[in-house]
Amino acid sequence: MKYLLALIGFVIVVSLALAEPAETTLAPVYQISPIGWVRKAADRTIIEIDKRYQPALLGLDELDTIWVLYWFDRNDTPKKRSILQVHPRANPENPLRGVFATRAPFRPNLIAMSRCRIVSVKDNIIEIDAIDAFADTPVLDIKP
Amino acid sequence: MKYLLALIGFVIVVSLALAEPAETTLAPVYQISPIGWVRKAADRTIIEIDKRYQPALLGLDELDTIWVLYWFDRNDTPKKRSILQVHPRANPENPLRGVFATRAPFRPNLIAMSRCRIVSVKDNIIEIDAIDAFADTPVLDIKP
Repeated sequence: MKYLLALIGFVIVVSLALAEPAETTLAPVYQISPIGWVRKAADRTIIEIDKRYQPALLGLDELDTIWVLYWFDRNDTPKKRSILQVHPRANPENPLRGVFATRAPFRPNLIAMSRCRIVSVKDNIIEIDAIDAFADTPVLDIKP
Repeated sequence: MKYLLALIGFVIVVSLALAEPAETTLAPVYQISPIGWVRKAADRTIIEIDKRYQPALLGLDELDTIWVLYWFDRNDTPKKRSILQVHPRANPENPLRGVFATRAPFRPNLIAMSRCRIVSVKDNIIEIDAIDAFADTPVLDIKP
């Protein structure tokens, strides 16, 4: 009898352990890191690429414009990342919209994208005409 | 003499310990998770948005086209993420280019973007005309 109860207990514990992952089903998490940063001086806007990624710039000087993907790092809090609807341009008179229907800097994944004109590329420095991002914003990717 | 040696040893150990963070300066890491997935049926391509993000779709039905940002999940290995130069379109006759000058699916941050035409939006399902992504690819963001 004692062994039977122990066996039943064992089966229950194993069943619960096996059942748990199926019930929680956490979304996968991917990790990203800056490949550079937006820098702003008096009259210049540059993207300073991390030296270790400089080889990834080969041929970039042949392009006129690039997509710059960056991270809304100032909004990287669970609270701000949970905002799903906004009044566009922070104007309460604009009807509520889902963040996926806007370019709002509040969204589950804080990825921003801007089309920028290249002024010059030298070593690890891309000078661009302008970008709608704060100075020292982390840059995630550059694409043609 | 014994105490002096101990003191020197202590100073060296503390100096090394204090110096280490400045020398390694690890890049920050940001975490992202899928907000949905690309699904492909016989003649339909849809983006299935995670139910919890459905409120973020409000107003999306007023748009004709969207940017779909997704994750090259099949290349999420340290080795593939360290590739910085490629022969475009995997053709060795194309001169080597930095990944930031191409749309290659190998890059430090595996973010992809495609412009897609909306066919319909219903509940948490966005039907689109087509997307150059594998079935079940994780979607990171939707933007106008």
